[in-house]
Amino acid sequence: MDPRIRTHAEILVDHCTDIDPSDDVLIRAPPVAEDLAVAVAEEIGEVGASPSISLTSDRATRAYLRASDPADFETPEHLQALMEATDAFVLVKGSRNTAEMGDVPSETLAAYQQSRQPLQEARMGKRWVGTQFPAPGEAQKAEMSTEEYEEFVYDAVNRDWDAQRDHQQQMVEIFDPADEVRVVSGDTTDLTMSVEGMKTVNDYGEKNLPGGEVFTAPVPDSVEGEVLFDKPLLRHGREIQDASLRFEEGEVVDHDASKNADLLASILDTDEGARRLGELGIGMNRDIDRFTYNMLFDEKMGDTVHMAIGKAIEETVPEGRPLNESAVHLDMIVDMSEDSYIEVDGEVVQRDGTFRFEDGFEG
Amino acid sequence: MDPRIRTHAEILVDHCTDIDPSDDVLIRAPPVAEDLAVAVAEEIGEVGASPSISLTSDRATRAYLRASDPADFETPEHLQALMEATDAFVLVKGSRNTAEMGDVPSETLAAYQQSRQPLQEARMGKRWVGTQFPAPGEAQKAEMSTEEYEEFVYDAVNRDWDAQRDHQQQMVEIFDPADEVRVVSGDTTDLTMSVEGMKTVNDYGEKNLPGGEVFTAPVPDSVEGEVLFDKPLLRHGREIQDASLRFEEGEVVDHDASKNADLLASILDTDEGARRLGELGIGMNRDIDRFTYNMLFDEKMGDTVHMAIGKAIEETVPEGRPLNESAVHLDMIVDMSEDSYIEVDGEVVQRDGTFRFEDGFEG
Repeated sequence: MDPRIRTHAEILVDHCTDIDPSDDVLIRAPPVAEDLAVAVAEEIGEVGASPSISLTSDRATRAYLRASDPADFETPEHLQALMEATDAFVLVKGSRNTAEMGDVPSETLAAYQQSRQPLQEARMGKRWVGTQFPAPGEAQKAEMSTEEYEEFVYDAVNRDWDAQRDHQQQMVEIFDPADEVRVVSGDTTDLTMSVEGMKTVNDYGEKNLPGGEVFTAPVPDSVEGEVLFDKPLLRHGREIQDASLRFEEGEVVDHDASKNADLLASILDTDEGARRLGELGIGMNRDIDRFTYNMLFDEKMGDTVHMAIGKAIEETVPEGRPLNESAVHLDMIVDMSEDSYIEVDGEVVQRDGTFRFEDGFEG
Repeated sequence: MDPRIRTHAEILVDHCTDIDPSDDVLIRAPPVAEDLAVAVAEEIGEVGASPSISLTSDRATRAYLRASDPADFETPEHLQALMEATDAFVLVKGSRNTAEMGDVPSETLAAYQQSRQPLQEARMGKRWVGTQFPAPGEAQKAEMSTEEYEEFVYDAVNRDWDAQRDHQQQMVEIFDPADEVRVVSGDTTDLTMSVEGMKTVNDYGEKNLPGGEVFTAPVPDSVEGEVLFDKPLLRHGREIQDASLRFEEGEVVDHDASKNADLLASILDTDEGARRLGELGIGMNRDIDRFTYNMLFDEKMGDTVHMAIGKAIEETVPEGRPLNESAVHLDMIVDMSEDSYIEVDGEVVQRDGTFRFEDGFEG
């Protein structure tokens, strides 16, 4: 087995989920990632925990969904019981064909996801990690050979996460006490928002592997200005290009896109919270050096800022502060590598992708 | 997809488990059998039930087991919760390599199986079916090409199970009211036993697909005589050849084998019940026309009788009748195609593999 897979498994079991002997662990991975499931299972055996090892089948899920009447969907009680009794989750993504769900009607997918939402919620309070296996499907989407994509994934994943935590902590210490944040890029993005009283989270590869961002929640009504998301964005396999949003008093009052503008509009119309920002994130993983049409990686890239319309992440919103609620959480990315800066309470903290605490910063 | 796979899936969902819209169904299949998982998932969608679809990984299980200390094994609570909340199970076997567990110490395997015994028990009261996908591993073990093995499996599985039930019912009606059964083959097997008051079960492809046997339980203390099991028998991947047993007052008092006699001895020594018969079964599936070293098929073959040492199957033992208890249930097969007969209460009911109610029977 590729030794990088064993390293990946060690990080998942030791660093990300901190498995101990008393844990009942759920491992889910697609067949193409069976090597990683094998390596994780071995780590779990060494720890002395109890695994449930399931390979997933997107082909079977697709067949089920296409044959189903969405009105029949219910939250499956057996899976709910499984989720509730599980202590820690290791969830691996990886596709032979990322378009496998391409011919499932979007209403069917939405109804299915809604019926399974309680399963996600049962997981949220537990230890869990979502990660990526370098499968041919994602390599193809990234326009990379499988071998090149393997190098990309393992460079991003198999790293010193303690050092990364310390690096990112410098940004947490800037953001956490801040009031106003301003993000400017070219003449297309100039957005201000308050983050007063919100908590900034240091993502150093616990729930996401790779990690590599710090993120917080804007005060929902405080967002003002306009933003152009000039980086790739996929929703249910469809690409929204050059999405732009204009905010007044926190609400999207104008929007457009050069491709699939109707899809963007329908997402914004999902509910009231879908027209407000739920997350502001700063990518800080310097080993992610290119876009791969995969949000797990793209949003962590060093020279980017991402914002999500819709639901705020609960750990960023302390008791008593306003939490944006929505069925939507859609991350969108702004390229900050050129002609761009981030200001915190009037002070520039990043310019053209370089942070104040990095070499080469020009305030 | 091979249309025979769709037929197999229909039989599993409609005939074997009778899935209805309110059911929470668990589907487990190895990756090599993903096509069958896809077809079953589609059937479940059409019915409107809720599936949990898991592909299995014997490689991951092996890695976990080899890395584990058997003293750590416990019944996983999360899987117990899953099993208890499941209404129906579709369990598919199929291997790329049937020796995948070959380097797991047998004590580890035994401790693992024991720790997971409560999971099996939670399933036993529910609707379930175990079946076989024609995978290359089992084809190799049967010394058949994969394509030839596919034909063998689908001939045995995709058939008219109502007609099979009626055919077998003729044997049930002979056995069910019977007292004494005698099985004679050549000069190596002459065994008598009482089946008085026991129930004869007609297996027409419900819990096993293929089905194709009728079976009952001997009165444990009634078995007398000797038997040579001249058909292949595998235990944890090791073959026991020409196992012979001599019974007095129901107990094995002498035993031998031409290969792996020590393994046979250790099985008989497991517990007290392991030295007594728990099952007498008559193979009646005429579409299984050769041995394939796979008990799911071999024991159903038309010209055979099988007997299991160890645990009796509960549905064959009515309340108040003696039920043989054991951790063991090992099926062993006698070839009845030549120089053989079965007598029930002194009357020959099968000679040289042909039943009394079949053409060509010579009483």
